[in-house]
Amino acid sequence: MKKIDGKQIAKDLVSELTQEVEALSGDKPCIAFIRVGDDPASVSYVKSKNETAAKIGITPLLFALNESISQEELFAKVDELNADPKVNGILVQSPLPKHLDEQATFNRIDPLKDVDGFHETNAGRLVQEDARGFVSCTPAGIVEICKREGIKMEGKHVVVLGRSLIVGKTFALLAMQKGEYANATVTVCHSRTKNLAEITRQADILVAAIGRPEMVTKDMVSEGTVVIDVGINRVEDPSRKRGYRIVGDVKFDEVSPLASHITPVPGGVGPMTVALLMSNTVKAYKLQQA
Amino acid sequence: MKKIDGKQIAKDLVSELTQEVEALSGDKPCIAFIRVGDDPASVSYVKSKNETAAKIGITPLLFALNESISQEELFAKVDELNADPKVNGILVQSPLPKHLDEQATFNRIDPLKDVDGFHETNAGRLVQEDARGFVSCTPAGIVEICKREGIKMEGKHVVVLGRSLIVGKTFALLAMQKGEYANATVTVCHSRTKNLAEITRQADILVAAIGRPEMVTKDMVSEGTVVIDVGINRVEDPSRKRGYRIVGDVKFDEVSPLASHITPVPGGVGPMTVALLMSNTVKAYKLQQA
Repeated sequence: MKKIDGKQIAKDLVSELTQEVEALSGDKPCIAFIRVGDDPASVSYVKSKNETAAKIGITPLLFALNESISQEELFAKVDELNADPKVNGILVQSPLPKHLDEQATFNRIDPLKDVDGFHETNAGRLVQEDARGFVSCTPAGIVEICKREGIKMEGKHVVVLGRSLIVGKTFALLAMQKGEYANATVTVCHSRTKNLAEITRQADILVAAIGRPEMVTKDMVSEGTVVIDVGINRVEDPSRKRGYRIVGDVKFDEVSPLASHITPVPGGVGPMTVALLMSNTVKAYKLQQA
Repeated sequence: MKKIDGKQIAKDLVSELTQEVEALSGDKPCIAFIRVGDDPASVSYVKSKNETAAKIGITPLLFALNESISQEELFAKVDELNADPKVNGILVQSPLPKHLDEQATFNRIDPLKDVDGFHETNAGRLVQEDARGFVSCTPAGIVEICKREGIKMEGKHVVVLGRSLIVGKTFALLAMQKGEYANATVTVCHSRTKNLAEITRQADILVAAIGRPEMVTKDMVSEGTVVIDVGINRVEDPSRKRGYRIVGDVKFDEVSPLASHITPVPGGVGPMTVALLMSNTVKAYKLQQA
């Protein structure tokens, strides 16, 4: 069993991007973050993205907007950044306050600056296997892990647990497309699936992205499976100072002895997300130069 | 075993659309067909679509363009029809001559007039389960067959053979989305799949869309499976006057005794495609009125 060190892989990618950005002549890539309100998780996510960008040499711009901003005002800010040739990537931090339409806001971003890959055009480009598209960062991070760990998907049975737009469905589309780190037979399971364990036991590569703490147990996994755990769940834990601990969708202790490779939580897929956002920003910069 | 009569289902749908269009006050829906060159198959497809439109009361417009038309001229025609408020749907008949970029042409169509569902925005809307989107006609026709035959997909294992954009991948996305005639566990197989028969035998609903004559044999199908055959393949047949016959991707004679329902070729999925195009045109009309 190999425990995949997502933190190290992300670090490697960040360091490669740093060299790539250093070598660029002229203006450096620039990413604009829009945060609406002061939700503590959002503040912390944007801060971490901002720091990673700065470290790489990508210019970060932060726009912290008032919680009560109207949809029109938010659109106006997006339009302004769309029109600004110095801005290569735009990220609107989710979740937005309830009075704002999140998908409409993502769709307002210029698809060529949509480094989060949430614009409908980029979802379409993924389906159509159009290389100009941006793929959302968590699923793209899983593919990157596979590449760097030499885990080929070709002809393998990839079972995806969860059909969310930002992970399950998008990863399924990546795995089934043509290409060296794709060409998989793909099964998408979810809350309505019957005989779930029977299906997951067939997986060569099992991606758990269903958001249920430790639901993947050893009876659901065959020996030699690559297990990718995308879950980030809080469970109460009075023994911890903060009163909870973070667990994945996989019961790590009992599943890991069966796995050929497994990503831990935390420290597996999580750190890849920010790294891929930066990779998308550099891609956006290049597409916009071309 | 029930042999599904796609011709009759399409007829029913066409007759319902006729009534719906008849009841509309004011301008009737209008679909514009663009055909480039005189490929006999394209001539015949467009003719059949044109006739069905006229029968329903949808105004058909046919633009037969010269084979040597430039990309810019083709775009100009699309732009003109996009701008024409009387035109609700635009269909560019595939295949285009090789010097023209088919996907770029589809992407030039106003997504709200893209009744073939090939625009990248509509592919994205399908992924995002956005009801404003247009779904391409063959996969949408399969869903319609399931609805009218009372074949619920919820919790069922749908196995799709083939990952083409116009059928396999799109149908997989339809089957895995949320909804009464969806919510399926979905597996996508293709030319790179190992142990294919082992996977297809697990299907409650098997959709064959791989374009290989009669490749689905009885050892690949379990008893009680719903078999949907999307293949339209020509095989040589000296006993026929025209020298060939049309067969599906399923070996009908040996598979049909095992199936709970099965679509024949011809007369199964095929006739649904044109009917769904008309249904999309009426939808486009309504969206544009709203």
